Amino acid sequence: MNEMKLGAIRHTLAHLLAQAVKERDPKVKFATGPATETGFYYDFKLSKELGEANLEKLEKGMRLLLKENLEPKVETLSEEDARELFKDQPYKLEIIDEIVGNKEKISIYTIGEFTDLCEGPHVENTKEIDPDAFKLTRIAGAYWKGDENNTMLTRIYGLAFSNKKELEEYEKQQEEARARDHRKLGKELDLFTFSDLVGPGLPLFTPRGTLMRDLIVDKITSIQSKYGYEKVTIPHLAKRELYQTSGHWEKFGDELFKVYGKGDTEFIMKPMNCPHHTQIYASKPRSYKDLPIRYTETTMVYRDEQQGELIGLGRVRSITQDDGHVFCTPEQVKQEVKNIVKIVEAFYASLGMYKKGLFWVSLSVRDPDDSEGYLGKPEQWENAENALKEIAEELELPYTRVEGEAAFYGPKLDFMFFDALGRERQLATAQLDFMMPERFGLSYIDENGEEKTPVMIHRAIAGSLERFMAIMIEHFAGAFPLWLSPIQIKVLPVSEHFTTYAEGIVKELKEADFRVEIDESNETLGKKIRNVKTEKVPYFLVLGEREESAQQVTLESRDKGKIGSISINALIERLQREMKEKK
Amino acid sequence: MNEMKLGAIRHTLAHLLAQAVKERDPKVKFATGPATETGFYYDFKLSKELGEANLEKLEKGMRLLLKENLEPKVETLSEEDARELFKDQPYKLEIIDEIVGNKEKISIYTIGEFTDLCEGPHVENTKEIDPDAFKLTRIAGAYWKGDENNTMLTRIYGLAFSNKKELEEYEKQQEEARARDHRKLGKELDLFTFSDLVGPGLPLFTPRGTLMRDLIVDKITSIQSKYGYEKVTIPHLAKRELYQTSGHWEKFGDELFKVYGKGDTEFIMKPMNCPHHTQIYASKPRSYKDLPIRYTETTMVYRDEQQGELIGLGRVRSITQDDGHVFCTPEQVKQEVKNIVKIVEAFYASLGMYKKGLFWVSLSVRDPDDSEGYLGKPEQWENAENALKEIAEELELPYTRVEGEAAFYGPKLDFMFFDALGRERQLATAQLDFMMPERFGLSYIDENGEEKTPVMIHRAIAGSLERFMAIMIEHFAGAFPLWLSPIQIKVLPVSEHFTTYAEGIVKELKEADFRVEIDESNETLGKKIRNVKTEKVPYFLVLGEREESAQQVTLESRDKGKIGSISINALIERLQREMKEKK
Repeated sequence: MNEMKLGAIRHTLAHLLAQAVKERDPKVKFATGPATETGFYYDFKLSKELGEANLEKLEKGMRLLLKENLEPKVETLSEEDARELFKDQPYKLEIIDEIVGNKEKISIYTIGEFTDLCEGPHVENTKEIDPDAFKLTRIAGAYWKGDENNTMLTRIYGLAFSNKKELEEYEKQQEEARARDHRKLGKELDLFTFSDLVGPGLPLFTPRGTLMRDLIVDKITSIQSKYGYEKVTIPHLAKRELYQTSGHWEKFGDELFKVYGKGDTEFIMKPMNCPHHTQIYASKPRSYKDLPIRYTETTMVYRDEQQGELIGLGRVRSITQDDGHVFCTPEQVKQEVKNIVKIVEAFYASLGMYKKGLFWVSLSVRDPDDSEGYLGKPEQWENAENALKEIAEELELPYTRVEGEAAFYGPKLDFMFFDALGRERQLATAQLDFMMPERFGLSYIDENGEEKTPVMIHRAIAGSLERFMAIMIEHFAGAFPLWLSPIQIKVLPVSEHFTTYAEGIVKELKEADFRVEIDESNETLGKKIRNVKTEKVPYFLVLGEREESAQQVTLESRDKGKIGSISINALIERLQREMKEKK
Repeated sequence: MNEMKLGAIRHTLAHLLAQAVKERDPKVKFATGPATETGFYYDFKLSKELGEANLEKLEKGMRLLLKENLEPKVETLSEEDARELFKDQPYKLEIIDEIVGNKEKISIYTIGEFTDLCEGPHVENTKEIDPDAFKLTRIAGAYWKGDENNTMLTRIYGLAFSNKKELEEYEKQQEEARARDHRKLGKELDLFTFSDLVGPGLPLFTPRGTLMRDLIVDKITSIQSKYGYEKVTIPHLAKRELYQTSGHWEKFGDELFKVYGKGDTEFIMKPMNCPHHTQIYASKPRSYKDLPIRYTETTMVYRDEQQGELIGLGRVRSITQDDGHVFCTPEQVKQEVKNIVKIVEAFYASLGMYKKGLFWVSLSVRDPDDSEGYLGKPEQWENAENALKEIAEELELPYTRVEGEAAFYGPKLDFMFFDALGRERQLATAQLDFMMPERFGLSYIDENGEEKTPVMIHRAIAGSLERFMAIMIEHFAGAFPLWLSPIQIKVLPVSEHFTTYAEGIVKELKEADFRVEIDESNETLGKKIRNVKTEKVPYFLVLGEREESAQQVTLESRDKGKIGSISINALIERLQREMKEKK
């Protein structure tokens, strides 16, 4: 079924919901009831209380209406007639106030006995709607027009699909998403926490969560080491002037955290690292022989996201970027962007995500209709957009040109991955920037002794560590690849008699640089194994009399089940091989 | 000579300076002229311009006065007589205004022909002053009473010591300190920079400076790894409530950077990490079996230091602490503090600074006269102070009890080191804290199932990385120990014919984990060697025909001079040995 048809079904269901509610509560006042991406909702000012237990009854009412094979009818009214028709419906009257400024005629739809101010579209006949393919799911509060100064209304949500199978699939995926929710798993795996005293959107990473962050950064560092990146370090503050020069002040003013000390200076918590990095570049004269200069830094930036939009690690106010900035000549741009693509490839391959069909690249360019929203001249933009297009083609990247998604300083390649539930996630990025170096007056002396402006490339591999962790926790459902697991091997002696043998094994594994834990509790082996499985540790070793006398261990894998007896040397070799493998 | 006598000499010289200035500029108005720790100054409102070229003439005038064997005479005057005497001296009249509120009589001193409002002390006869042991050094502007809203005066500075030798020694030490100034060397060695757009007190670390920071942190991490510290990660912001709970708000209110976003919440840039770390501890229930829990994090804190007091890396607004917090039972405190002392010992031994006579430990306790300035109950303080005393004695630390130097939450051990110029530097610290865990309601379940409050230990090994780097740059005059040198070995092929051989050597050294650079420029060998010496690289290798045919290198040490021919394997072994040595 096409999206438009499905939208019409969902919208018609919203009207049927309104009629069902009206039958139960004749004094109800109607607000609005649109289709959504998965169904529909309607907002009401009820005169009778409504609990979730009533949803089933409303659903039944809607199914009865469906069976009547109703045909939605559209009419247009004058303002006066519309006001008369909706004289008892204050929210509709407010909508009419808004419409009359813009349109001559007012459109209404009647389905059965319910008439609504509405522009459609609707199905032609309610028999087109599968009565088993929709469901009312929940009731929530919602402010009229989304403004917390307005009246609180009651919103009823529904799901609706083309057929029953699609509805069930969606519900199953939702259930799976809930089971994988990184907020739930993050707590179970003890990776991060929040504190009311610290504030919303400001996560605190526990030892295990910090270890995981370090593993991600170390992996990227080791991959990019051969491409000549050098670590730098900057403070989290700068004077407002820095961001006025960069253009961030104008573009992001509202999202910036402002900082005040004793004096008059207005500081800003850095929302980006690039302006600071330009100042390290500018700290001494540069020659073409010094280029490319490649700075990298994993550091937090701060953005005042709306409190209501903060979701676990998925959207935070303290964002750790694995940031990098390359300063180079125009001739070097292509090779540098290609190197960045190589780093992205190696990193996401280690996660099993860089496979055909599992990712695509967005070549994000200007919105051609928005000349205000971008810095720099059209010809600079054209050059930069063409350069990226050539790179994407030469590297045979699966790319799509997306208008309006560019950064305000230049076009970019965004790497989009599909997670285990098929959700699209934007992660790595490489962005060209012909403007910021100019704004900061950066220069180098070229082969002919002339002063030139370098090009800047902004790049991130994991993107934001917080969002990356949220996505990986959900993608792997907490069962991370060996290299990314905070604890890689758990050693389970069957009783205290084997503690000495177990501790010797732990020591050998640690010397081989594995992250090992031992469970020396008095629990039964069964309980110890259940704990390991909850913790999603990739491997565990059982050690008892048989193992000790054979100087072996019994190995079990999280992903492959029982593997059997193995010597410690063979185990180390096996795991070292797995660490090196690309997924 | 005792300090009081020297103070009298310096003060008398200030009066003689005033007389010499008056002889040159009879209309001069006198402000004040005290002794300082190294000499004296006098502030004047001059009617005739004065350049540094005139200082020598003034010095001559002072020496002539000295030879007159003048005897300072003191008198006391009534307010009326004093006002009459100084009727042409507006600054003196202002001082009289202040004195009359507090004292009955006004004291004046006359030396030769110059009479000053003055409380002494002075020498008995100017012949006690060595004419070769003083010097006028410079002229600077200074606001009357140090207030920038007042008139700008001219300040003339002088040095004065007991004898010529002491003066010369002081000047030599000053010259050495200037040569070692970390701001100068930091630029030469390309370790850090500042930017006007970023703001004062907010250093940016270049790749080399960042490498040095990482080397320091890695060294500490490897030393403390056996003591069970675990890395955690926190944001640089928190709600004001966090610091109201911790007590920092009340204690440091003025030095805190306040942060505002779109909403009403007032955030603070963290001035300390401990409150955040308590929130990780508090994120789940803890048992005595989990303790000690030891968090560590190298992260920036922010304090709004006065702009005038910012000095290179010596005092900054973005302070990177190598912080650590231990949560333990009261019984575990001693062992944990002892472990911290072991870490301090191992780290400073690697710098050659943990030697008898080169450091001492300040056991910093409350100021017994200030009951307001500290949190918690007297008996808690007594217990904590006694615990630290016992530890210091059991470990035979060279310690001194210093009153009034405790943190507001508890007593501490501060490690004080003497640098190469004999200057005392406070670096590592271990602080007991019986209060903060209580304020944050932290707890653990003890052996008997009862809820108890843990003790908190705050510790830093390098202290602030910025200050630590400033001190180390000056202590070593940039010639760092092998392990701390950003570049350890420089390879100098004598001509382009030996580039291939040199690159092979570089590869071998890099594989052995040394930080190596090659100088492939077209410079002469002499120039290359001069560059290496400016960069203070610990070792360099010269490679030419003789070396290549013998498959050897010619080794020269920064500290020990030419060492001679050596095979690459022998070189690697030698350097690896040096890396492990304690200084």
